[in-house]
Amino acid sequence: MNRELLWADHVLTMDADNRVINDGAVLVEGSRIAAVGPARNLLQQYPQVKVRRLTDRLLMPGLVNTHCHSGMLRGTAEGLPVWDWLQQFIDPMHRVLTPQEARLSSWLCYAEALLSGTTTVVDMWRYMDGSAEAASELGIRAVLVPYVAEHPDHDYFETLASNEALIRKWHQAANGRISVWVGLEHLFYAVPEAWKRIGEMCRTHDVGFHTHSNESRFDVEETLRRHGIRPVQALEKFGLLDARKVLLAHCVWVDDEEIALLARRNVGVAHNPVSNMKLASGAAPIEKMLAAGVSVGLGTDGEKENNNLDMFEEMKVSSLLAKFAGLDAAALDAWSVCRMATIGGARALGLDQQIGSLEVGKAADLIAVRVDTPRMTPLLASGPLANMHHNLVHAAQGGDVDLTMVSGRVLVENGQLRTADLDFLITEVNQAVPQLFARRQAWLDQAGVAINELTRTADA
Amino acid sequence: MNRELLWADHVLTMDADNRVINDGAVLVEGSRIAAVGPARNLLQQYPQVKVRRLTDRLLMPGLVNTHCHSGMLRGTAEGLPVWDWLQQFIDPMHRVLTPQEARLSSWLCYAEALLSGTTTVVDMWRYMDGSAEAASELGIRAVLVPYVAEHPDHDYFETLASNEALIRKWHQAANGRISVWVGLEHLFYAVPEAWKRIGEMCRTHDVGFHTHSNESRFDVEETLRRHGIRPVQALEKFGLLDARKVLLAHCVWVDDEEIALLARRNVGVAHNPVSNMKLASGAAPIEKMLAAGVSVGLGTDGEKENNNLDMFEEMKVSSLLAKFAGLDAAALDAWSVCRMATIGGARALGLDQQIGSLEVGKAADLIAVRVDTPRMTPLLASGPLANMHHNLVHAAQGGDVDLTMVSGRVLVENGQLRTADLDFLITEVNQAVPQLFARRQAWLDQAGVAINELTRTADA
Repeated sequence: MNRELLWADHVLTMDADNRVINDGAVLVEGSRIAAVGPARNLLQQYPQVKVRRLTDRLLMPGLVNTHCHSGMLRGTAEGLPVWDWLQQFIDPMHRVLTPQEARLSSWLCYAEALLSGTTTVVDMWRYMDGSAEAASELGIRAVLVPYVAEHPDHDYFETLASNEALIRKWHQAANGRISVWVGLEHLFYAVPEAWKRIGEMCRTHDVGFHTHSNESRFDVEETLRRHGIRPVQALEKFGLLDARKVLLAHCVWVDDEEIALLARRNVGVAHNPVSNMKLASGAAPIEKMLAAGVSVGLGTDGEKENNNLDMFEEMKVSSLLAKFAGLDAAALDAWSVCRMATIGGARALGLDQQIGSLEVGKAADLIAVRVDTPRMTPLLASGPLANMHHNLVHAAQGGDVDLTMVSGRVLVENGQLRTADLDFLITEVNQAVPQLFARRQAWLDQAGVAINELTRTADA
Repeated sequence: MNRELLWADHVLTMDADNRVINDGAVLVEGSRIAAVGPARNLLQQYPQVKVRRLTDRLLMPGLVNTHCHSGMLRGTAEGLPVWDWLQQFIDPMHRVLTPQEARLSSWLCYAEALLSGTTTVVDMWRYMDGSAEAASELGIRAVLVPYVAEHPDHDYFETLASNEALIRKWHQAANGRISVWVGLEHLFYAVPEAWKRIGEMCRTHDVGFHTHSNESRFDVEETLRRHGIRPVQALEKFGLLDARKVLLAHCVWVDDEEIALLARRNVGVAHNPVSNMKLASGAAPIEKMLAAGVSVGLGTDGEKENNNLDMFEEMKVSSLLAKFAGLDAAALDAWSVCRMATIGGARALGLDQQIGSLEVGKAADLIAVRVDTPRMTPLLASGPLANMHHNLVHAAQGGDVDLTMVSGRVLVENGQLRTADLDFLITEVNQAVPQLFARRQAWLDQAGVAINELTRTADA
């Protein structure tokens, strides 16, 4: 079995005490962490083990991106609020997307994620056999969640049937690195019989469930109009909170009762501050949720909502948004942000026994961050002015990640992706997009405008 | 005279039409831009000139950071609103700062700025002979503005006398790359006679004036209480808008009359969205100011307010904040943001004839940004879905800057700083800070708490 001792200037464990070990080391055995401690001790204890000396580096758990969509529309769908944007840019793309394009999108997105320090990604996307192949070959840990719709107006998405086929084929594949959950675009994208089937599928296959909820004010108002209750209550009523793990993206407009319900039902929340600001959705009440015991992780949302997949940026913006939205400079301290990006995200996925911190027995999912940059200087790793967590949240960037390891395998080394030819991927995407846009335009020219179930009903 | 043709995949001129030249080139002669156009034409026109082929690169004007403070407190002064934060962390630092520490801070900050694509920085700082030396040797273009106080409670800052000495020694030094303006921490940090002297000094030396204004709600309320008028009106009344160029940092809480006054008096505004969010100051009405014709640039504020000096992050957050604050996903389009970061910033400094766009006759201040990254993919440089400006604002990061040139001199090449030993600088800062913190603590232990003129008066 492969054994390697990673020795870095600092080891940020993200354990229950946010322990930092200066001049620390992590012993990796196969795919797992076998020891964590001062380098001095581990070097003595394991004198025969190969040592990887990470000078001017900080080791920390890989980041957990709890909500993402593969895609290649970056920067081409701008300046619209979320529902209009869905209708004009996104739904029409879904109608003409090919499996090849979907596959290529996942390759690019997972490559970007790995290069910026994400080791686990929750991806809601299409034709996800290609995504599973990409995750399998690139080496990232992935929770794959098909973009399911079960509704006559949205017959061009994934279906529960294709979702189930994906579960059968890929759930727990790649030595457990790949999970497949049941997905749903939104409560409104499914008819009531489908809600029931979702619950059954989650039970039958013992998998989680992921959907968008409470993203915009409109979402809440429309649920109230349709069902007389708010979205989280509606999800509960329709049996959609019964899966072994439920993860809701956004939860911007949740009231106190919904927050209590999320806590009671152990529902995870994926907070996407960049997307929520960019699409003018609003500010999720993160501190309230954390105080209520809700497991909150961070997510970048997709390349078209953000427009990058850098979890360091997400950390910074989560802090900025909390401080600005409450006009309170003390809101959402940096340790809370670091936890959301790692162990908190893991908990939101029900994976906190496997990943999210550097602790013995967990998967060796870790990253090395350069500290020999101006933006990490000064670096005070201990004492009352310790600033490592502040620097990570407010100064560091994805580009500062030097090494990315998932399940003990080095995927990024010296800032270079080892498991794919990045230039080739980029070229392929640049060549593919004009055709995708042309087909989307042709579809729009013929159909007029996309019918969106939501808008249609609201106008009626 | 040195002549070089820079040939890149894309040239973003930021001229009046935001013209993009695909497969474009810029001819640099000495310190100036001698030609801009399609590479084909320029290669033909200047067959003898040395060519620098920038493959997979986008050339654009260097970024103009209109408000920054050198410093080395990064991540050590967190979680407080602006006035408390000043009193507990910043003012006590100013009382014990040494010229050597101030000088070192400028070296680090200008290095960080250059590495992330900033070619012009407005720096309000202390003991600025050291800053001038740093700017001179590192090669950055700088507007140096001493942190002046002329008030009995704040007798530990720069003074108008030291400011004037700096002007005499350094204004227009380094072939005009260095300017020195008259600075003032804040209106409240000077007694009325000093206001008068500021006006005289600006006139005598024909230099600009820079101060903080309307940053927090408290700032406005206290000005109203003291003077019965709002801050911008107060600045005008006291003769502080009379300099050849006036630049106000923040302007978060400006009302319509103040905006009209800023436009009428051709006052520049430095917008610092990250700082304004992090310190919970508020959201400046940028679109209103732009619509009124006010020249608005972007600024990072200091390493302790941000906590990095990445103007790309500032661009992204300016867009996010405008969209979120107005709950309008169409607010502040990407072109406006690109302009604020370049030509708009130059205009806010009265330097738009010299810098801010790639046009013939202007200084050769330019940067090359990598486009062979996942976060810049796809890149559509023309057509209805052109996304270069969106990618620059929402996806790119300072670390993507590969080449930085100021006045025709290459300061960063292949992402490496050429004009200083970065590792040495970082080590020096890490070694210096413990002593600075120890002296600050000793001062606080002896003095109790810093007396702040503002708080003192407000409590009285």
